[in-house]
Amino acid sequence: MNTFGNIFRLTTFGESHGEALGGVIDGMPSGIDVDMEFIQSELDRRRPGQGMLTTARNEADKVEILSGVFEGKTTGCPIGFVVRNADHHSADYTNIKDVYRPSHADYTYQMKYGIRDYRGGGRTSARETLCRVVGGAFAKLVLREKGIVIEADILQVGNQKLQGTREERQAQLEEVVKAVRAENDSIGGIIGCTIRNCPVGLGEPVFGKLNAALGAAMLSINAVKGFDLGDGFEGVGQKGSEMNDEFYNDHGRIRTRTNHSGGIQGGISNGEDINCRVLFKPVPTILREQHTVNTAGEEVTFTAKGRHDPCVLTRAVPIVEAMAAMTILDYMEMKETHHL
Amino acid sequence: MNTFGNIFRLTTFGESHGEALGGVIDGMPSGIDVDMEFIQSELDRRRPGQGMLTTARNEADKVEILSGVFEGKTTGCPIGFVVRNADHHSADYTNIKDVYRPSHADYTYQMKYGIRDYRGGGRTSARETLCRVVGGAFAKLVLREKGIVIEADILQVGNQKLQGTREERQAQLEEVVKAVRAENDSIGGIIGCTIRNCPVGLGEPVFGKLNAALGAAMLSINAVKGFDLGDGFEGVGQKGSEMNDEFYNDHGRIRTRTNHSGGIQGGISNGEDINCRVLFKPVPTILREQHTVNTAGEEVTFTAKGRHDPCVLTRAVPIVEAMAAMTILDYMEMKETHHL
Amino acid sequence: MNTFGNIFRLTTFGESHGEALGGVIDGMPSGIDVDMEFIQSELDRRRPGQGMLTTARNEADKVEILSGVFEGKTTGCPIGFVVRNADHHSADYTNIKDVYRPSHADYTYQMKYGIRDYRGGGRTSARETLCRVVGGAFAKLVLREKGIVIEADILQVGNQKLQGTREERQAQLEEVVKAVRAENDSIGGIIGCTIRNCPVGLGEPVFGKLNAALGAAMLSINAVKGFDLGDGFEGVGQKGSEMNDEFYNDHGRIRTRTNHSGGIQGGISNGEDINCRVLFKPVPTILREQHTVNTAGEEVTFTAKGRHDPCVLTRAVPIVEAMAAMTILDYMEMKETHHL
Amino acid sequence: MNTFGNIFRLTTFGESHGEALGGVIDGMPSGIDVDMEFIQSELDRRRPGQGMLTTARNEADKVEILSGVFEGKTTGCPIGFVVRNADHHSADYTNIKDVYRPSHADYTYQMKYGIRDYRGGGRTSARETLCRVVGGAFAKLVLREKGIVIEADILQVGNQKLQGTREERQAQLEEVVKAVRAENDSIGGIIGCTIRNCPVGLGEPVFGKLNAALGAAMLSINAVKGFDLGDGFEGVGQKGSEMNDEFYNDHGRIRTRTNHSGGIQGGISNGEDINCRVLFKPVPTILREQHTVNTAGEEVTFTAKGRHDPCVLTRAVPIVEAMAAMTILDYMEMKETHHL
Repeated sequence: MNTFGNIFRLTTFGESHGEALGGVIDGMPSGIDVDMEFIQSELDRRRPGQGMLTTARNEADKVEILSGVFEGKTTGCPIGFVVRNADHHSADYTNIKDVYRPSHADYTYQMKYGIRDYRGGGRTSARETLCRVVGGAFAKLVLREKGIVIEADILQVGNQKLQGTREERQAQLEEVVKAVRAENDSIGGIIGCTIRNCPVGLGEPVFGKLNAALGAAMLSINAVKGFDLGDGFEGVGQKGSEMNDEFYNDHGRIRTRTNHSGGIQGGISNGEDINCRVLFKPVPTILREQHTVNTAGEEVTFTAKGRHDPCVLTRAVPIVEAMAAMTILDYMEMKETHHL
Repeated sequence: MNTFGNIFRLTTFGESHGEALGGVIDGMPSGIDVDMEFIQSELDRRRPGQGMLTTARNEADKVEILSGVFEGKTTGCPIGFVVRNADHHSADYTNIKDVYRPSHADYTYQMKYGIRDYRGGGRTSARETLCRVVGGAFAKLVLREKGIVIEADILQVGNQKLQGTREERQAQLEEVVKAVRAENDSIGGIIGCTIRNCPVGLGEPVFGKLNAALGAAMLSINAVKGFDLGDGFEGVGQKGSEMNDEFYNDHGRIRTRTNHSGGIQGGISNGEDINCRVLFKPVPTILREQHTVNTAGEEVTFTAKGRHDPCVLTRAVPIVEAMAAMTILDYMEMKETHHL
Repeated sequence: MNTFGNIFRLTTFGESHGEALGGVIDGMPSGIDVDMEFIQSELDRRRPGQGMLTTARNEADKVEILSGVFEGKTTGCPIGFVVRNADHHSADYTNIKDVYRPSHADYTYQMKYGIRDYRGGGRTSARETLCRVVGGAFAKLVLREKGIVIEADILQVGNQKLQGTREERQAQLEEVVKAVRAENDSIGGIIGCTIRNCPVGLGEPVFGKLNAALGAAMLSINAVKGFDLGDGFEGVGQKGSEMNDEFYNDHGRIRTRTNHSGGIQGGISNGEDINCRVLFKPVPTILREQHTVNTAGEEVTFTAKGRHDPCVLTRAVPIVEAMAAMTILDYMEMKETHHL
Repeated sequence: MNTFGNIFRLTTFGESHGEALGGVIDGMPSGIDVDMEFIQSELDRRRPGQGMLTTARNEADKVEILSGVFEGKTTGCPIGFVVRNADHHSADYTNIKDVYRPSHADYTYQMKYGIRDYRGGGRTSARETLCRVVGGAFAKLVLREKGIVIEADILQVGNQKLQGTREERQAQLEEVVKAVRAENDSIGGIIGCTIRNCPVGLGEPVFGKLNAALGAAMLSINAVKGFDLGDGFEGVGQKGSEMNDEFYNDHGRIRTRTNHSGGIQGGISNGEDINCRVLFKPVPTILREQHTVNTAGEEVTFTAKGRHDPCVLTRAVPIVEAMAAMTILDYMEMKETHHL
């Protein structure tokens, strides 16, 4: 189950401290110009070391494309790519080798597979998500040719809703994160994602509804614990008369006056903006002593070492966009199957 | 995309006012006693006409099993079933034939398929979910042999959180729904679902995480607009030190002292209760005049006729359980593939 | 694994002597006129009792469409259908209940599932294939709108190659089958299938090559033991210079002068006729005493009772066509995903 | 469609003259010792330059494992691997850039994708199969722990059936190939494959029959045009009484006295040896002038340059084994889903 998608499909591999991470993109349309600068810039958005708010791991995260591109254009053949782990030999993991870190996946992986690569969390590391960003970047290359724009942003960090200009919101975010860091703690939040100019008709009822596909995409990201669409959980108090989106004729194009539905009705996009929210729990790694159990079943204490990011939201923004982009492209391709 | 699941798979068909609804259950373990009374009782839980709170459509909703069962036991072969639509000829749909009802799927289906069965909403009717309940009932037959229990309940209707005894919560629910009905309006809410005694190790990272699978399952139900796990959106203010679930050794079994994670870590069940919440928007059919557009693109007004349920939460409870049951069984079967 | 196809998908259920057989067709294009007479006529082609050469089971095999069709046209929603087993209570199966019939699937089903519906072979009966014919008939409705024609025919029965006019070939076939019947034996043979006017570009390398898809489709039919394409096994002695199909320009359309490849190159259709052959082994039921083992592991003798068809080739012709039709339509739909 | 398998899955990428070929193996059981020497030796078996009979391309074909292995054992996480193309810059392709080579996939790829990497055939090159051999080698690591043995061999080259000792058969092969090379021609043949000690119960009727899965696996290999099982096409003249495999009790184990069925009955393995045959057409590249058409549609002549292998059978043997190994392991994993 390391493959995402139905027609546009991303298959990934790689651990935090193995040789490399990478993947295969299948179902990429042919004849698309491959803008390597853009792809690398997407990766850079999620890279560690992005300003004061993120971890200091020194990784270039350069993606190498191995196939599927010829003379600068996609060929319709699968695109293989790798990102080498530059400093994968440097670390010391003796303190996590034999312990199940609280709210990490050490325990569940050990139970499921009977073995785990404990170095940096192995496959469970959020480092895995860089492959998603590569897949999403290729999807975006197609979407932008169609005028479809995907933008995610941080809506809330902890209880603090971010408001105002970009600079003001960044300042609000930094203030919360600084305080959390000073306490050697961590914090989660909510990322919003908007898909503009989405064509009408994406979604494959009854089990492949577009909201189900977007939800699964987002809930597969590390640390994500919730997803909603349109007014979502915050609109739970509204009645039908408040929530219904009335149709009108906008110079020949049928639109809705409101968009409480978040652009999807009956599991199919209606052409309005698709709005969704993605909930991230706090990263479980905190620089405090915690009680836990080791692999021998003994109760022990554990304190994480090194530098760790107290808040992943900034780096998660391009990941949310990537999952949205791949989902939309996949469903655009599936929609074509209806038009013989 | 009318198939749900990977190994345990439900494929469904049927429209609100066609001949019948039904489906095929594939991947059902063999040798399971088929308790027809239980299966029918699950269907009865979602049937219209359940007390004063629900619509009065007169349907027996009797399920007929056509295959896959021999001498009272499952054979491992696919189980075909049908539920006839008893009163499918009686209704008059002239008022919805040519209009796109607000926040219904009339418009998106017409755009996607170029044709739609408008009678009672056709395929988009929540009547489709009875097939899910049949699939879920078969899944529950297996789960209960393993001691796994799935229970859903209404947590909140509109802004009203339900609290106290079952009777008190029912009274609170009825009060809200009565008031909404008096206003010819409708209301949504939140259903919680708990999975007890879930084995450790269910979930197929990185894209088949158990939370992603549960989320997709729930978000494919009609009118569902949100999903969260464990503390979910309500826990967004908590820090890592508050949210982390510390492990301890409970007489040889490794458990967590708290369960903020909702029983899933790294996308894999950890043996604690799995808790999730499912958000339902208000049903869009309300007995009030609304502005909309007809199929010719003209702006018109529309008022729904007949009796309609102002709140689907009571009938949605068994549907939520069914989707959970099928997901858990599917992932139990997938887990077996790891143990050659 | 009771689902066939990727986008155009048929899911089937049903045993020889259960209540009914049936299935769900998903991915059917919308807006197609449903010619029920044609669909029933396809079923009639594979029905028992087709002249002197086939078994005398008295089944009307009337298909009932339950969904997915509205006012005579497909809606794009899944098409549920059932075919009732008319005489499923009449038979006596005491002689096969506890015995593993040679070269039947009694033994393998019992080992795999631990239980089996022994009545008439249960799920392993060729009666299952009538669902394929229904799926194929719907596929043909689409293909014929595109001018694509699928025709299968018996090429060989036993060692006898059929040659000459239709009447002559029928006479040759009957002569062989009569002789085999007189010996209480059975005989297999080869069916050829040709797909004309197939569009260029069907096939999804590298694992979804069109020849692989056609091969899997045919090899999933009961009693099929071999498949080849173009010159196939009979051309094994030819060299590259004899086998290569040279291209030429036929008034602007690129074609090949010969068609040793059978219309597929590199796993993708090239627009020439697709020719394949399907090998059927003799039906294992023969009216002679055979040595075998019973379910207790004891060596016993077994003699089949009743009337049995010594040769299934005539009835298999529409089944071969059905599998070809569904494969081609599925791949036509997949091809569309390349054209955003 | 560059993914093979259901649970054990291989996804591949790469062109003949791109940067690298590679893939991702998903569903590999955890805890398996990774014998790198064995894996490389399997690759060496299909490598160019194997003695006088094969092409002289100078490639080391060293596989690099990038993930999914920790301290010498598989972890259950996906295994990424790459094989670099050592001499991918050296060649000159001006003579094939604008021409559709007869019976190659140049034309069909151009029509399907609108673009193609013409260098060495790009994705259509048999060089793609080295990724299959890597996947098959991992599968074999598991199978050999279970005592399951897969062996392929050349049965026939052109019309020449190979007989006698290994040395005699090699001599017969070389004699035919030498003669064909002297004529600047090419030749195909038949490879047989036997799977010994296969467990009873592999196969997922009705569409996932083991014979259908093996057939699809083999028919997806470059140049394969036919597949049969057991007595196959050569047994077409046999009657039921000759073809049926009678059961007996072999000291408590139920076996068949003959094995005309090739180890599969009703689509499920019966524990006997699985025997199948795979037909390869002659490689289409021959050192002779041929008539064809260029990309402008003009009729031209084309003569291949350089050294080319007149017969691929020797190098195809490990590829056939690899496809068989992956299929068997995949179906072993699927079989586990029946045993909750």
